[in-house]
Amino acid sequence: MAKKNEVDRRSMLRRGLLSAGAFAAAGRIVRADDSIGVNAPEWMKTPGRSFSTYGMPAKSQEKVQRAFTVGPGRDGTGASRTPLQMLEGTITPNGLHFERHHNGIPDIDPSRHELYIHGLVKRPLAFSLDALMRYPMESHIYFVECSGNSGGYIQAQPAQTTPGGLNGLLSCSEWTGVPLRKLLEEAGLESGAKWVIAEGADSSAMSRSVPIEKCMDDAMVAMFQNGEAIRPEQGFPMRLLLPGYEGNINVKWLRRLKVTNAPVDARDETSHYTELMPGGKARQYMFLQEVKSIILKPSFGMTMKGPGFYEVSGLAWSGSGKITKVEVSADGGKSWTRAALNEPVLSKGLTRFRLPWNWDGRPAVLMSRATDEAGAVQPTRAEWLAQYGPGQFYHFNGIQSWSIEGDAVKNIYV
Amino acid sequence: MAKKNEVDRRSMLRRGLLSAGAFAAAGRIVRADDSIGVNAPEWMKTPGRSFSTYGMPAKSQEKVQRAFTVGPGRDGTGASRTPLQMLEGTITPNGLHFERHHNGIPDIDPSRHELYIHGLVKRPLAFSLDALMRYPMESHIYFVECSGNSGGYIQAQPAQTTPGGLNGLLSCSEWTGVPLRKLLEEAGLESGAKWVIAEGADSSAMSRSVPIEKCMDDAMVAMFQNGEAIRPEQGFPMRLLLPGYEGNINVKWLRRLKVTNAPVDARDETSHYTELMPGGKARQYMFLQEVKSIILKPSFGMTMKGPGFYEVSGLAWSGSGKITKVEVSADGGKSWTRAALNEPVLSKGLTRFRLPWNWDGRPAVLMSRATDEAGAVQPTRAEWLAQYGPGQFYHFNGIQSWSIEGDAVKNIYV
Repeated sequence: MAKKNEVDRRSMLRRGLLSAGAFAAAGRIVRADDSIGVNAPEWMKTPGRSFSTYGMPAKSQEKVQRAFTVGPGRDGTGASRTPLQMLEGTITPNGLHFERHHNGIPDIDPSRHELYIHGLVKRPLAFSLDALMRYPMESHIYFVECSGNSGGYIQAQPAQTTPGGLNGLLSCSEWTGVPLRKLLEEAGLESGAKWVIAEGADSSAMSRSVPIEKCMDDAMVAMFQNGEAIRPEQGFPMRLLLPGYEGNINVKWLRRLKVTNAPVDARDETSHYTELMPGGKARQYMFLQEVKSIILKPSFGMTMKGPGFYEVSGLAWSGSGKITKVEVSADGGKSWTRAALNEPVLSKGLTRFRLPWNWDGRPAVLMSRATDEAGAVQPTRAEWLAQYGPGQFYHFNGIQSWSIEGDAVKNIYV
Repeated sequence: MAKKNEVDRRSMLRRGLLSAGAFAAAGRIVRADDSIGVNAPEWMKTPGRSFSTYGMPAKSQEKVQRAFTVGPGRDGTGASRTPLQMLEGTITPNGLHFERHHNGIPDIDPSRHELYIHGLVKRPLAFSLDALMRYPMESHIYFVECSGNSGGYIQAQPAQTTPGGLNGLLSCSEWTGVPLRKLLEEAGLESGAKWVIAEGADSSAMSRSVPIEKCMDDAMVAMFQNGEAIRPEQGFPMRLLLPGYEGNINVKWLRRLKVTNAPVDARDETSHYTELMPGGKARQYMFLQEVKSIILKPSFGMTMKGPGFYEVSGLAWSGSGKITKVEVSADGGKSWTRAALNEPVLSKGLTRFRLPWNWDGRPAVLMSRATDEAGAVQPTRAEWLAQYGPGQFYHFNGIQSWSIEGDAVKNIYV
């Protein structure tokens, strides 16, 4: 038998076939076999509706939506969040990808949009969308996460809200586009080329400085998201994609790439997106989204249904590459059990982890801790705060905790 | 140099960096570097639009839609097709997944829907959606293809239409759900259990017979599609998913699974979905979607832009497992060159293949030929017809050919 409150994968596996009795979640046992199917529901008695050119979710799914708040008179500045706890798997449907805009979503005419590559290059180039579409492409499943995601965890009191509310500036898509290095090679880098200043075609002219090494590595100019053209909110007709780097630097509505010998110190890398350290100095150009995980089931807002079987499941990711391990604790970090990782585990993608849990109904504290292929392990919240707090909230990747008591799930600090 | 009309990957690789001159597709060279960025487009001069709870594609993408035709008075019977040639990568966005309905899309109340497992089982069971949501889940990226897909290739004259028109009863999603074997194990199979009759909750009561071996292998009851709840057109709130098997047997709006000792010979496995063989006999229960590939770029409906660089790209898949090889010919099958496969190559998923092609502007015939991990190779159309034609059109997987002449791409039989 499993020890109290212990996530015990081996005992579940030992049991092999899960008997009906073992499931609090089990199907309702029905007796009169012959009657099954006789009483057809009304939707089987009348022809259904017809086809559509572009489908939408079921009406009953109206609550599965992005939440956002904007200030008065600034309705294009803010963020909307992916409702992670309502989703499954690892792909974010395009309609629910998180948004972060600094002056709204521009209404770009794709036939008039051009991407310029200039500065320290031999051949300054302009690319129409049609021109870019003829280049060799690649597809990759990558997460994008805002560096401010989970920033609420620096607050003194734990916020009682959903994983989407806490961590919903995180999404994952199959991105398709042209490797940036192919375009830079065509333009021809001059000696001294060390940085690329990326500018968006929105009315905040979002500008960020990108090290040339990243541009020549896995950077891409993405034009497709989960098969179709990138959505306006994600940068239609094209965005910069820098796998594993903070969301903001993945410049949307990409318009210019100016090759330079130094970073530009743009507004959004001085007034924002810097890291104020405990000593009073600020770090700049900390791009990496480090190893992280969150438990989505169970989580705040869900109601426990008494003792019995639950699947603990969540997401893990790292800007450094693949997730190699996710451990789950049900006793507030005293003991840990390794979760199963849903294959394929992809570099810089989201990884779904799952672990069966036989809850005995007594108070428990669920936590997850991820490790990536670089060997980095998620710190505790206290460890993270000691290093970075209290002045900044970017790049929080500490371990998160849900307390289970009675039928309630709460956010707690351990 | 590449031989005439030959798809020559080695020569492209040998060249290493593709110089600007090598690209007909190249960026336009611009001279006045300083002026770049000065003339901002009008969409940078005014704040953009605000956030949304559920996003939609850009207005300019209105043509990227499913095409469908329905008969008079039977507007729920027919099919809509995924516009494959307008998409990229391998994931199909949920709004564009192909549809095939036999009496429309039922408007199911998910709180009242139940899945029954009965027949030759020890414990007949009923599962509400809430109950099923508590079971251990798995996520997999799988294609679904209608067995009638590409059936137009048995016509005497090649249809002049797009890949979506010819092959668009094909889509690919990340599906998440409960492995069916876990539910059958909970119900407890009786001796003699050889088949499972799956019934949908639509008004055609779609019913199909599934071998018990498949049900205990990789079958799943799927509830999520690309992260969100399955769309109504794909079976909301749940569907049967039988990876690699013909679309129709992946019963949507799944309502009943009756375990039996024999197939049921349902309407849709006698009047439809049987294979009339040349000798006059029909084969039943041929479920597998065999190894297949299609070239999407270039394809019918696209306009060639003169000699120069093109990326030849398309999709390959097999119901038997992974694609191991895709070869492309530009001379109507005389010579073949291996294409690059976009990683990760997933079992029973779609695989994107790509190959650079330096077109000399002379007439060419492009073909693709896929091989799967079981060693099966796509047959020529003539070979396929000799085996199956002319009486049936299900499961066509012959090699397809595009002729390139001037700026036109046409569908031809070789």
